[in-house]
Amino acid sequence: MPEFVVVLVEPKYSGNVGAVARSMMNFDVRRLVLVKPACPLDQACYARAMHATGILDSAVTFPTFADATKDLDFLVATSSVEAHTEKYYLRNSIALDKFAGDIAKVDGKVGLVFGREDYGLFNEEIAVCDILVKIPTSDEYPSLNLSHAVTLVLYELYKERHPGRKQRELGRVENDTLHGFFAELLDTIEYPAHKKAQTKIMFRRMMGRAMPSLWEYHTFMGVLSKTLSRLKNKK
Amino acid sequence: MPEFVVVLVEPKYSGNVGAVARSMMNFDVRRLVLVKPACPLDQACYARAMHATGILDSAVTFPTFADATKDLDFLVATSSVEAHTEKYYLRNSIALDKFAGDIAKVDGKVGLVFGREDYGLFNEEIAVCDILVKIPTSDEYPSLNLSHAVTLVLYELYKERHPGRKQRELGRVENDTLHGFFAELLDTIEYPAHKKAQTKIMFRRMMGRAMPSLWEYHTFMGVLSKTLSRLKNKK
Repeated sequence: MPEFVVVLVEPKYSGNVGAVARSMMNFDVRRLVLVKPACPLDQACYARAMHATGILDSAVTFPTFADATKDLDFLVATSSVEAHTEKYYLRNSIALDKFAGDIAKVDGKVGLVFGREDYGLFNEEIAVCDILVKIPTSDEYPSLNLSHAVTLVLYELYKERHPGRKQRELGRVENDTLHGFFAELLDTIEYPAHKKAQTKIMFRRMMGRAMPSLWEYHTFMGVLSKTLSRLKNKK
Repeated sequence: MPEFVVVLVEPKYSGNVGAVARSMMNFDVRRLVLVKPACPLDQACYARAMHATGILDSAVTFPTFADATKDLDFLVATSSVEAHTEKYYLRNSIALDKFAGDIAKVDGKVGLVFGREDYGLFNEEIAVCDILVKIPTSDEYPSLNLSHAVTLVLYELYKERHPGRKQRELGRVENDTLHGFFAELLDTIEYPAHKKAQTKIMFRRMMGRAMPSLWEYHTFMGVLSKTLSRLKNKK
């Protein structure tokens, strides 16, 4: 069973943070992480949290996105805005309810990452996430209030949660190794330099959706590693 | 197709009313009805509504619940709390997602009724509603913020009206080519023969879950094909 952590990136309004805490308690999620908050956890924040003040008390603040997420095994970026062509792999997303079903199989710390009230998440932040989840909203006015977005995601995850044996999934170390090998492969085959970055992100996104089990991971790594050593020996 | 009307009974906080309006616009619902609001639609209300100020401008206020609902064809009471006093009515409650599917078949004006921030709906109000919808929440702290409750209901109804756009997936030809290349890779790197079959199935299963877009497919095939040709040239 995944352990969910709500990550708010540079929230501006303390009332929103309080409303997020309340919603977390409504859906049995306890760990709140703040990245460089632009507001104090003040009286307004605690008032909006209602019975969830304990979540605010134990919230942890980090100076950067990298610091906040280095302890998490799987990163989920959330957005209600969608780009139009699939070429923008960065925004190639899956729908919230589909995601809720898929992620239930993951074991590890899953960071649910929510962006700024005005600018959302930056591309560099979305790029390092394993998956991008789209919350379906009106084309006319897609932009959700921050605590509304959190509420919808936690609600779908809550609905999905049910007892049952879960596979052990990839942790941060396995994930890093996998993507390190892939990067090495691109180098070794002299993949065009100007296409490398986006191909790596494409691979990360694809693997994020595939959510390999540990066994699948090791098997696939075996193939990659044998391929790499074969390529190098031939040089 | 039903026409949805959001009915707020004696809301206390104008910020909540504004947040409800924003959420209505996010999910393409336009008609807002207020029963004896305990707050003015002030500056705080309009600020929270963001781009949905038109919904506030055209909101209609009634002095009583009966007046507000006499024009509506079907009344839906909503609750996240299973209070002792509501037990009787809750026997006939249905879960939110089930409700969203069922109501899609109704033709007419459907009032979605939300209670006070502190006391919810009174029994007399629930009694005249046609249905009671339960929003699933934690037993430990079930009580949702008003605008969160509205958001969840409107989201489920929106999802029902907009079944997910199907992603363009790989056809038989692309799939066969992908797995053909993978098989060739295993041969070329002299992968142990007794493990080949299950590794191919593992890869097929993993790609099945990854559901690559056409663009991701072509990018990934580029990597595979360059790897293969490099391996062969080195022989």
